[in-house]
Amino acid sequence: MRQDHLITATQLSRDDIEAVLDRAREVADDPAAYAGRHAGRVLALCFFEPSTRTRMSFDSAAKRLGIDTIGMGDVDSSSVSKGESLSDTVRVIEGYADALVLRHPSEGAATLAAEHVSVPVVNAGDGAGQHPSQTLLDLHTIRENHGLDDLTIGIMGDLKYGRTVHSLAAALTEFDANQHFISPESLRLPRSVRFDLHETGAQVREHTDLEDVLDELDVLYVTRIQKERFPDENEYHRVAGEYQIDAETLEAASDDLTVMHPLPRVDEIAPDVDETDHATYFEQAHNGIPVRMALLDTLLENAEAAEGVEVDR
Amino acid sequence: MRQDHLITATQLSRDDIEAVLDRAREVADDPAAYAGRHAGRVLALCFFEPSTRTRMSFDSAAKRLGIDTIGMGDVDSSSVSKGESLSDTVRVIEGYADALVLRHPSEGAATLAAEHVSVPVVNAGDGAGQHPSQTLLDLHTIRENHGLDDLTIGIMGDLKYGRTVHSLAAALTEFDANQHFISPESLRLPRSVRFDLHETGAQVREHTDLEDVLDELDVLYVTRIQKERFPDENEYHRVAGEYQIDAETLEAASDDLTVMHPLPRVDEIAPDVDETDHATYFEQAHNGIPVRMALLDTLLENAEAAEGVEVDR
Amino acid sequence: MRQDHLITATQLSRDDIEAVLDRAREVADDPAAYAGRHAGRVLALCFFEPSTRTRMSFDSAAKRLGIDTIGMGDVDSSSVSKGESLSDTVRVIEGYADALVLRHPSEGAATLAAEHVSVPVVNAGDGAGQHPSQTLLDLHTIRENHGLDDLTIGIMGDLKYGRTVHSLAAALTEFDANQHFISPESLRLPRSVRFDLHETGAQVREHTDLEDVLDELDVLYVTRIQKERFPDENEYHRVAGEYQIDAETLEAASDDLTVMHPLPRVDEIAPDVDETDHATYFEQAHNGIPVRMALLDTLLENAEAAEGVEVDR
Repeated sequence: MRQDHLITATQLSRDDIEAVLDRAREVADDPAAYAGRHAGRVLALCFFEPSTRTRMSFDSAAKRLGIDTIGMGDVDSSSVSKGESLSDTVRVIEGYADALVLRHPSEGAATLAAEHVSVPVVNAGDGAGQHPSQTLLDLHTIRENHGLDDLTIGIMGDLKYGRTVHSLAAALTEFDANQHFISPESLRLPRSVRFDLHETGAQVREHTDLEDVLDELDVLYVTRIQKERFPDENEYHRVAGEYQIDAETLEAASDDLTVMHPLPRVDEIAPDVDETDHATYFEQAHNGIPVRMALLDTLLENAEAAEGVEVDR
Repeated sequence: MRQDHLITATQLSRDDIEAVLDRAREVADDPAAYAGRHAGRVLALCFFEPSTRTRMSFDSAAKRLGIDTIGMGDVDSSSVSKGESLSDTVRVIEGYADALVLRHPSEGAATLAAEHVSVPVVNAGDGAGQHPSQTLLDLHTIRENHGLDDLTIGIMGDLKYGRTVHSLAAALTEFDANQHFISPESLRLPRSVRFDLHETGAQVREHTDLEDVLDELDVLYVTRIQKERFPDENEYHRVAGEYQIDAETLEAASDDLTVMHPLPRVDEIAPDVDETDHATYFEQAHNGIPVRMALLDTLLENAEAAEGVEVDR
Repeated sequence: MRQDHLITATQLSRDDIEAVLDRAREVADDPAAYAGRHAGRVLALCFFEPSTRTRMSFDSAAKRLGIDTIGMGDVDSSSVSKGESLSDTVRVIEGYADALVLRHPSEGAATLAAEHVSVPVVNAGDGAGQHPSQTLLDLHTIRENHGLDDLTIGIMGDLKYGRTVHSLAAALTEFDANQHFISPESLRLPRSVRFDLHETGAQVREHTDLEDVLDELDVLYVTRIQKERFPDENEYHRVAGEYQIDAETLEAASDDLTVMHPLPRVDEIAPDVDETDHATYFEQAHNGIPVRMALLDTLLENAEAAEGVEVDR
């Protein structure tokens, strides 16, 4: 990957993606070889929105590479509340750190940040926009379980609002993947996303019933249907119930089916699925570490190369 | 100590306790020998409830061993508020860290966590339950000042609600300790705790007046009487006032009396006691560092041994 | 600098200041020489008030020296809310750390803390009191751009309430600096500050119009005029507008004029100034790192010397 920043998953070519995932595999196979690799570096975790798992995952990945982290603390209490612009904030923070991880409620925030600073910026979620390291860890999980080509994947749940889903679907068009989208009528993929997928020539089909396609799937990617999307609570319960799976549901699936979920889950996947060999969502979450280590390693390496810094290892 | 987790003080035998406290003594005597001993390891500080001193103490102890820490941030803003179960949360976090320290408002939370993860879990307080590292640092403080056998200790204040007190009293039954409990009638030890103590054959006596027993004591362990335990504020002030000590109170005590308090204190111990040789509560708080270092060192060593990891030192 | 703590800028002689700034220059020139210099040390960041940039700057500076940090977390939730005194809190924390950085809403808090602990204390802001590391980074920025003698500086904006300004003005009296103060009548320097400056024999003049003095200035230090200082919002807008600068304003200035601001800025400096060579406020913020590294390095070195610790480098 020859990039200065990671802002969107769509900025990544197939080669870029494979380069990061190859490195993630190396990290997972031999973490000791990466321990302390960037000792003395400092990463700023700039979370303008709450996050537990993404922040902890980047924090741990950084530390596994020997990178120290500094955080913004409680955002309400920061300079932001004094009316400082995002560009001023990141221009100050770039002086404190060798790279920035940014989560912000506004779409486009990471792009703006990357325009104003000279250190690498990683987008860890910008509103309804992108969350590319999630996409990379999803791809890594699929790749380690099935490979990314000759893949039949079903993506189920809230396909209208989920940025995770849109990024993953777009990234999969770089590979030879058969994509099935399973959702209630009211939560179908947005027209624009559907259009973009078709434009790439990707094989895309939509369903309202999981059983129509379950037995063909290598991967079932489940997402949460949120109550607040429905004006009527009864309607929510009726619809959400149809897109919940349990161990019994999966009896109709291939033995090799990999079940994924970006987490946190609520009721979409019953606890009895955890005990099956299908359950891969905790492994998926754990893959955040090698993938984010590979990502930070790559971006810092690129930044050092750009500076002409000689790095001995 | 041959344990995978530390959930309760009562899980520890006399030998277990002495092994940890011996190591704590070694750490205190030669901290440099332990510096960086677990470099490259990551500890997750999972505080689902606010805490300053316990969290900072574990954080510092970890770093003194070369262990990096990752925190959960403000809990309200975490995935917890999206309705994720505790078992899901800890199963995700175990992928980010080599051990977990957990504080949670619900009794039994640490036990539950330990059942779901394969890395060591340390209970840093679970509601009305246990807080075993506090007990260990209390024992260490007593041991370094008087030894744990042939001990006469007075425990004073709110004996009804204080988990600190119940754990300490239980742990002391492993040793040859004479325990006196001093409290107002309304805040006596709960019947069940009293019963358990008597069952062990421990020597236990209860008093309402400190002066009945003060001159016999090696250690006086003071705890706070909380206003919210009393329906009537005047009643609170009358009672609490009787269980406050100052330098004058201690004139009737042995010169060697050690005064302890789990802190924070409010009015239970007057500031003029700080200037006396009796005052040991700051030393007690500081003992959190070597004791928690010894604890983390032991648990990580046990985990490595269980994994068959060869550790060169 | 032969000090145990850094509480106020006024405690520092010209020699003290120059010693720290010389070291800051060394740090900036060769950061690698300082990396890991204090490995194994722990710094407690005790922020009893929100702060983003000061906290992150100390955090990064510490880590650049190999020092680990521990924080207090959200202050409302700390022991403080249980009524613990500041002196008890810092006496506990000194057992967890090798030095303390303290921000507190009450003037005099850092002085109190320094009286109760035996590790170095750095005041990072105590209410309307002092914020000496800000003063040092301001001085460093001036020194690196113009030198501290034969200096003509204009300080503009809210001169009544800004502690930053009062500390800087006081520190500049140690050097041969010509100080101009530019503000609306209602926000002039307090009489006591003016008096103290005159007492030192410093050259001090006050203006209401920037244009009276702009062309003479080597440095223009801009501060924010806060809306809440004005009973009437229209009055605020009228006044604040007169003390805002943009690229056009600066056409009347020397080509070498250095424009500084403690940040965050709101409207006081228009974004088009960022593109000019005058803009030095981001560099000023970034100078927090070498200056705070030099400061922590000095205080820890002094503490080690006082302990008779032999330090090999």
